[in-house]
Amino acid sequence: MTSEALHTDTYARGKALSEQVNPGMEEALQARYDALVPGLSRTIVDVAYGQFYTRGTVDEKTRLLATVAALAALGGQTRPQLKVNVASARAVGATREEISEIIFQMALYGGLPSMINALNAAIEVFEAEEAADG
Amino acid sequence: MTSEALHTDTYARGKALSEQVNPGMEEALQARYDALVPGLSRTIVDVAYGQFYTRGTVDEKTRLLATVAALAALGGQTRPQLKVNVASARAVGATREEISEIIFQMALYGGLPSMINALNAAIEVFEAEEAADG
Amino acid sequence: MTSEALHTDTYARGKALSEQVNPGMEEALQARYDALVPGLSRTIVDVAYGQFYTRGTVDEKTRLLATVAALAALGGQTRPQLKVNVASARAVGATREEISEIIFQMALYGGLPSMINALNAAIEVFEAEEAADG
Amino acid sequence: MTSEALHTDTYARGKALSEQVNPGMEEALQARYDALVPGLSRTIVDVAYGQFYTRGTVDEKTRLLATVAALAALGGQTRPQLKVNVASARAVGATREEISEIIFQMALYGGLPSMINALNAAIEVFEAEEAADG
Amino acid sequence: MTSEALHTDTYARGKALSEQVNPGMEEALQARYDALVPGLSRTIVDVAYGQFYTRGTVDEKTRLLATVAALAALGGQTRPQLKVNVASARAVGATREEISEIIFQMALYGGLPSMINALNAAIEVFEAEEAADG
Amino acid sequence: MTSEALHTDTYARGKALSEQVNPGMEEALQARYDALVPGLSRTIVDVAYGQFYTRGTVDEKTRLLATVAALAALGGQTRPQLKVNVASARAVGATREEISEIIFQMALYGGLPSMINALNAAIEVFEAEEAADG
Repeated sequence: MTSEALHTDTYARGKALSEQVNPGMEEALQARYDALVPGLSRTIVDVAYGQFYTRGTVDEKTRLLATVAALAALGGQTRPQLKVNVASARAVGATREEISEIIFQMALYGGLPSMINALNAAIEVFEAEEAADG
Repeated sequence: MTSEALHTDTYARGKALSEQVNPGMEEALQARYDALVPGLSRTIVDVAYGQFYTRGTVDEKTRLLATVAALAALGGQTRPQLKVNVASARAVGATREEISEIIFQMALYGGLPSMINALNAAIEVFEAEEAADG
Repeated sequence: MTSEALHTDTYARGKALSEQVNPGMEEALQARYDALVPGLSRTIVDVAYGQFYTRGTVDEKTRLLATVAALAALGGQTRPQLKVNVASARAVGATREEISEIIFQMALYGGLPSMINALNAAIEVFEAEEAADG
Repeated sequence: MTSEALHTDTYARGKALSEQVNPGMEEALQARYDALVPGLSRTIVDVAYGQFYTRGTVDEKTRLLATVAALAALGGQTRPQLKVNVASARAVGATREEISEIIFQMALYGGLPSMINALNAAIEVFEAEEAADG
Repeated sequence: MTSEALHTDTYARGKALSEQVNPGMEEALQARYDALVPGLSRTIVDVAYGQFYTRGTVDEKTRLLATVAALAALGGQTRPQLKVNVASARAVGATREEISEIIFQMALYGGLPSMINALNAAIEVFEAEEAADG
Repeated sequence: MTSEALHTDTYARGKALSEQVNPGMEEALQARYDALVPGLSRTIVDVAYGQFYTRGTVDEKTRLLATVAALAALGGQTRPQLKVNVASARAVGATREEISEIIFQMALYGGLPSMINALNAAIEVFEAEEAADG
């Protein structure tokens, strides 16, 4: 995409993606946060989804595995977001083994505790999948 | 690879990879560090290269982009290692745009300062490439 | 205050402030920690309250909003202390919207996960207020 | 501002602010980064300036002191950004003593090394001011 | 140990130590993680126990107190691993007061929140000891 | 020491220690920082030296090795303070090999980049010793 195209209708593009991967997300954020922080929900859709996730250049699976890597290395403080991104990586075709492998390597950069704690978070996502499939 | 194969000759496998991507690395580490920490150089080759980087499951380019993501999100304290991994990602075929894109997305997880500082480190690697090519 | 005044009776000044904002704090710390770390409770009162919080130069509301900002950016590991400081900021007149706004901006420096997790912690404090008011 | 107003013309609002506090910033970012990350400069203006810094609710001085607090607590990895925000805090009327006081308090949350290193960064900004005034 | 000795039979040496301080650990790791990350359990035994913990040069008690210090300073994200290392420090003769003293000092480097949260984790270990003794 | 003794004349005790290990430190801090942060120098002497370093319970060498461990694990942002503490550890009898060994182990908790960067900082201290001895 050209720079101009990248900044045309960022909210609309973000909304399309967020509805696809996480239906109802903007409304849920709005209900919980917008009275305190007016427009928070729209900024998340516009910025995170419209100005970052939909940029292209790297495919979705690589982008999500890179995100999982970063959140694992940053340590347990990002656990809820790590679980969301592990689920998203699964949704675009990453196998459990690929996700786990990327997390395992983070032992070298974020240390062993970050790695084990992140792997435990991923396992919770995998077990929820099985429960849903079961 | 089976678990058994993964742990056979980890030093030899690590040595083969480190010589390919970074010739003379073990000797350089040995000369600088082993008098203080006996065996540090061999542990790096055996562990980082033999027991992590050569595991397979994910391709080298994805593995290196995930590593770049993690080091960018962890912030400027890992600058020397970020530059090494940016160069390695280039060596296995990642474009400058792909590497920069992954770093850009880290603004969402590690903050704007980490992102800009990591992008500056990557640009130094790209400029050194051009100087070498020139 | 002059430098001399700042270091006169730091324990007494700290005690006065801690009794005002958090009655019984020193005794609670003493009961829980001082058998293991003799004098921990007195050091907290003397140092945190007497040598930092009572220094003046910036007003209490600004000081507490800055503290909320730092704890939010540092991520979920400081959740209990973030909640205490959100409550203290409320006690000196900060509105829920001001506190939430400061936390929201931390998305730029500590990343989106830190921001959302900190906002959730603040909401718990606000809900406890309502329950107490109710 | 209403949520609707907050998201109308975010780029235009961001551009107005960035030109005021940091004239030529978008062009400088564009020249350095946009070939690698198309649109990075516009995203910074739209998001950081248009969707965060111009939101209101807290006054500019408080917002900048809170930002200085967060960057100080996050440690030396954000040094260039800390210096920019110290200068911005000065530009909206914060005294050197207020800025230094906020940084000093961060010893309690980010540790003594973060505090001293951040204070050294602030002093560089103050010395540059004096050189410019001289 | 010579560098050669340090790298002979690292798995066997690691296994001997892990069986002594944490009987059944490799099997537990294997059951939980190896289907996702083949060989993870063996890498932990070989690397953490065989190539780090058994190196000598510093005595076990100092090594474990240094580990407790690092995990406390890194903050609450490493809580499960902090508890394991507090228990290990107890097992090699560190008193509760020594462990608590080392954690207390970390207030200077990791901040007050990290210190208090780490002390709370240590107290859980001490209380479990008493329950077991009781 | 009893809790009472621990809090009697903390400034005097801190001053005695700081003069012993780092003569002239308070005056140097005063000259550089006290105009901006009145009393900063006295707080460092009173708190860090008087209320932490002189507590006893663990011997000085263990205390300093634990500090080196924490600063190494926290990453490159604490480099100046790491170097000061490596020098202090040397001054109370820690060998270069012991210091390096403790830093090496931090690879497991703070990651490989933190470890290598900390080891490089320590080597600078060791080389300065040799230059001074030469």
